[in-house]
Amino acid sequence: MQEQSLQYLVVSNLTNVFYVTGFRGSAGIGVCGLTETALFVDPRYTLQAREQAVGVSVLEQKSRLLRAAGNWLKKRGARAVGYDDAHLACAAYRELEGSVGSRCVLKPAAGLIEELRTVKDAAEIQAIRNAARLTSRVFNDIITLVRPGVSEQDLATEAEYRMRRLGAEGSAFDPIVASGPRSALPHARASSKLLKESELVILDLGAILAGYAADMTRTVFLGGPSGRVRRIYASVLDAQRQAIAAIRPGRPGGSIDAVARRVLGGAGWGRSFSHSTGHGVGLDIHELPRLARGVRSPLRPGNVVTVEPGVYVEGLGGVRIEDTVLVTDTGAEVLTSAAKDDWIIS
Amino acid sequence: MQEQSLQYLVVSNLTNVFYVTGFRGSAGIGVCGLTETALFVDPRYTLQAREQAVGVSVLEQKSRLLRAAGNWLKKRGARAVGYDDAHLACAAYRELEGSVGSRCVLKPAAGLIEELRTVKDAAEIQAIRNAARLTSRVFNDIITLVRPGVSEQDLATEAEYRMRRLGAEGSAFDPIVASGPRSALPHARASSKLLKESELVILDLGAILAGYAADMTRTVFLGGPSGRVRRIYASVLDAQRQAIAAIRPGRPGGSIDAVARRVLGGAGWGRSFSHSTGHGVGLDIHELPRLARGVRSPLRPGNVVTVEPGVYVEGLGGVRIEDTVLVTDTGAEVLTSAAKDDWIIS
Repeated sequence: MQEQSLQYLVVSNLTNVFYVTGFRGSAGIGVCGLTETALFVDPRYTLQAREQAVGVSVLEQKSRLLRAAGNWLKKRGARAVGYDDAHLACAAYRELEGSVGSRCVLKPAAGLIEELRTVKDAAEIQAIRNAARLTSRVFNDIITLVRPGVSEQDLATEAEYRMRRLGAEGSAFDPIVASGPRSALPHARASSKLLKESELVILDLGAILAGYAADMTRTVFLGGPSGRVRRIYASVLDAQRQAIAAIRPGRPGGSIDAVARRVLGGAGWGRSFSHSTGHGVGLDIHELPRLARGVRSPLRPGNVVTVEPGVYVEGLGGVRIEDTVLVTDTGAEVLTSAAKDDWIIS
Repeated sequence: MQEQSLQYLVVSNLTNVFYVTGFRGSAGIGVCGLTETALFVDPRYTLQAREQAVGVSVLEQKSRLLRAAGNWLKKRGARAVGYDDAHLACAAYRELEGSVGSRCVLKPAAGLIEELRTVKDAAEIQAIRNAARLTSRVFNDIITLVRPGVSEQDLATEAEYRMRRLGAEGSAFDPIVASGPRSALPHARASSKLLKESELVILDLGAILAGYAADMTRTVFLGGPSGRVRRIYASVLDAQRQAIAAIRPGRPGGSIDAVARRVLGGAGWGRSFSHSTGHGVGLDIHELPRLARGVRSPLRPGNVVTVEPGVYVEGLGGVRIEDTVLVTDTGAEVLTSAAKDDWIIS
């Protein structure tokens, strides 16, 4: 905020509101000053906000929250206030603009909180560790149901159900179960298709615990894989292991992506690796930092990222192997523990 | 659009994109003209968009979609273009503004698609009917598990699981299960609290099918309710029945709310009915039209609304009874069918 000469920052995205205040309701506006934080909520949430937002001034407002925040800023004589132009809708912006007064300049300042969120503290790491452990446990449970005749959707439903039974707040995304030719679509969703003998099956799962997500993918084969499928699997696993081994503080995200790309390219699958190597995980399932082409910002201890190379061959299917990985002071720690070598189900 | 002198409307909210094009991906921008509709998607979604968006020009764009839409509008010499100021973020707006050219005026036009969405056609009504039937079926299934010692969260988990097992795409919202004093919080979420003898239990469920939601609440009592609880239940049920009976085309939403409020007020519970009587249901679980104080717009055949009066007494608990209701040519048809008289579980 000081670098951008901001006296205050209006925090409107609810995930960011939770991050800066601890409040988890479905409506609220935060205002961060250099020495104080205020939270505007409607009467439904006053009690909950007072409990959750420790050290924050909770201000109940029957009227529109952004207008109330603007009036509050005007009273304090604010002259330079940042707002989240990546999320705040035009109409909401006008409400804020109309109430802060003509002496106040509103400056676009998207990404400030997201940048803070990239480095997780001990409590956040513990939450993600727990979510990762639960996700691995659910995978180990679900894999016993993977056999010909079961539908993709049934496996996805069982996965989500078991997450909740084990205490997850929910699934961080609709579990992906994609089998046979459908596994060649990186963004496939679980369908009514039944699993068949001699098919690849991609399972991509992630639980949420205490607000934090984990993300894990495993690929298995039903029956005896061909030499080609074995080579693809071995290459993806090699790419994933080498990329994880390359992680350490100071290395740019793009260089980790380059490692995975070099391994797969060397094995002849470069053009079949159609997405980036990884993304940050935390309060959102996709956040910063990215492990992708051209990303120069260096990794820092406390970053949590996925490492998920994949190879997709139309008609044949796809292989993706993904772990949630913590960047430590000296390297990387894999938080999702399900086995990767035991991929042939016969 | 013609009333507002718009040549084109940029549709950015994904639910509205689905409504106007049929495309159900996670990223896309629609542009509606008076005689044509275009859909801008990235390469991940080109194939899917061509399948789903029948009669729409699908334009694949590697670059940013709003800029592409803006360039397309500029080429057509558009001078008056509406955009959704209630949803479009400031930064996205600037991207559009920077590409449409200086001759084009962008006009805030939030709510145009939402207004169209209030009147459901036969296929939409069928989808909501199916979602309502599935929701009722899940309730009838779950109610057999409602007994002392079961946790709220376990019931919510079972409800969501059974929705999916019966073919729902998912739950329209985290099922609400609130028992004892927690049932007095209209926005309670399912917690780890165990149900106990002599408690009210509110169950608020809704499934999604073919993109469309249903919404239903029932309240039950474990054991023998006191006279006071019986009177509250009878009043809420009476208010709900009278409000449903009052529904017909031409009546303003506010008048239906007034009916429920009058019944509960007459029974002495007026101040304990702390929310409005209902809301529209469709692609979103909360949409227009509202049944609330001051709403003057008349109901129309094809509207689908909830009717959900409730009474909340701190310390004692709450009673809410909710159905999803179709406005017909002559009155109302209740789509959620679970019983309301059979509320005492002994």
